Amino acid sequence: MKILLIGGSGNIGRAIAAELSGRHEIIAAGRHHGDVRVDIEDEQSIAAMYRQLPRLDAVAVATGGRNGHVGPLAEMNAERYRVGLDAKLMGQVNLVLRGLDKVADGGSFTLVGGAWQPQAIVPLLSNVYMANAALEGFVNAAAVELPRRLRINLVSPLLLAESEAEYGPLFRGVPLVEARQVARAYSLSIEGAQTGQTYRLGRLD
Amino acid sequence: MKILLIGGSGNIGRAIAAELSGRHEIIAAGRHHGDVRVDIEDEQSIAAMYRQLPRLDAVAVATGGRNGHVGPLAEMNAERYRVGLDAKLMGQVNLVLRGLDKVADGGSFTLVGGAWQPQAIVPLLSNVYMANAALEGFVNAAAVELPRRLRINLVSPLLLAESEAEYGPLFRGVPLVEARQVARAYSLSIEGAQTGQTYRLGRLD
Repeated sequence: MKILLIGGSGNIGRAIAAELSGRHEIIAAGRHHGDVRVDIEDEQSIAAMYRQLPRLDAVAVATGGRNGHVGPLAEMNAERYRVGLDAKLMGQVNLVLRGLDKVADGGSFTLVGGAWQPQAIVPLLSNVYMANAALEGFVNAAAVELPRRLRINLVSPLLLAESEAEYGPLFRGVPLVEARQVARAYSLSIEGAQTGQTYRLGRLD
Repeated sequence: MKILLIGGSGNIGRAIAAELSGRHEIIAAGRHHGDVRVDIEDEQSIAAMYRQLPRLDAVAVATGGRNGHVGPLAEMNAERYRVGLDAKLMGQVNLVLRGLDKVADGGSFTLVGGAWQPQAIVPLLSNVYMANAALEGFVNAAAVELPRRLRINLVSPLLLAESEAEYGPLFRGVPLVEARQVARAYSLSIEGAQTGQTYRLGRLD
């Protein structure tokens, strides 16, 4: 398969490349690295990226762009919620919408969610939880409308072991999941048969 | 209790009023009806509404404003997804953020989601599912950050029996739920003790 991997330089992206590059052709895309450049918050940049690419069998997204505004609920407002809605949510949604004609029959889109478990919710991240939940709703709904047996799934890891040093203080006690386990969920989505699924990694129950 | 009911003239709003008005004081707010007027898509209108009101014990939202853009996935774009994100999602989020100082200790916010079940997803509604899922993420996350024992829950009905004539053709075969059952979930949220919950009504399993 020809797999477009967007955000290949992060922990998850590198693990996906390690998991899949032995048996598939990976085309890496990123804001600063990769075979093609793309800013997922810019629809024109997404369109320009797809124009440069051959027919694809899968689009795997491993970045949420700016992700979401981190801050106390009491200091949130519509503008701050807009960060996650424009970047992580609509950035990925636009990658799907603009890529519909680029992916071969039976091909797949795999998006990235994140910190997801109601029992393990921590403060400061309401924008991130909002965007991740919205992605789940989108993936559920888009799955029933995709043409040509195209499929779509969401991979939602809790805290990456590889990110503990950076984000651990925000997520004290939250279960860790290794990037290579997350990459296996991408394999399940891309090389499997399911659609409309959310693959959750790192549970506390 | 003094309960602000936003969207009191719809099917759910009328059922909430019928359920709660015998034992509580209901202040009705709406775009065209009610004791006070509010356009939930306009933050200044929300702020102006709250300025006119006394201290509240509960805010119950029974309207999602314009709700969301209904249309085929192939015709969706960022601007159309913005309808549900600005109206149903951020309209309700702003009702919470702007109302934080207006609700007495231990008081509650109850928001309205909707068509929610992955097994009963129908076409054309990806914007609505996105906004409803995002509300669930927001409610989960806001619950752990609300001060003064304030609580927040989401009521998510599938298709209302009372709306079958209007929306039934969009939702063939989807389980029906009566507005008075939905109103009982508002009672559970307002008169109960839980927070961060999504009360789902109308399941197919």
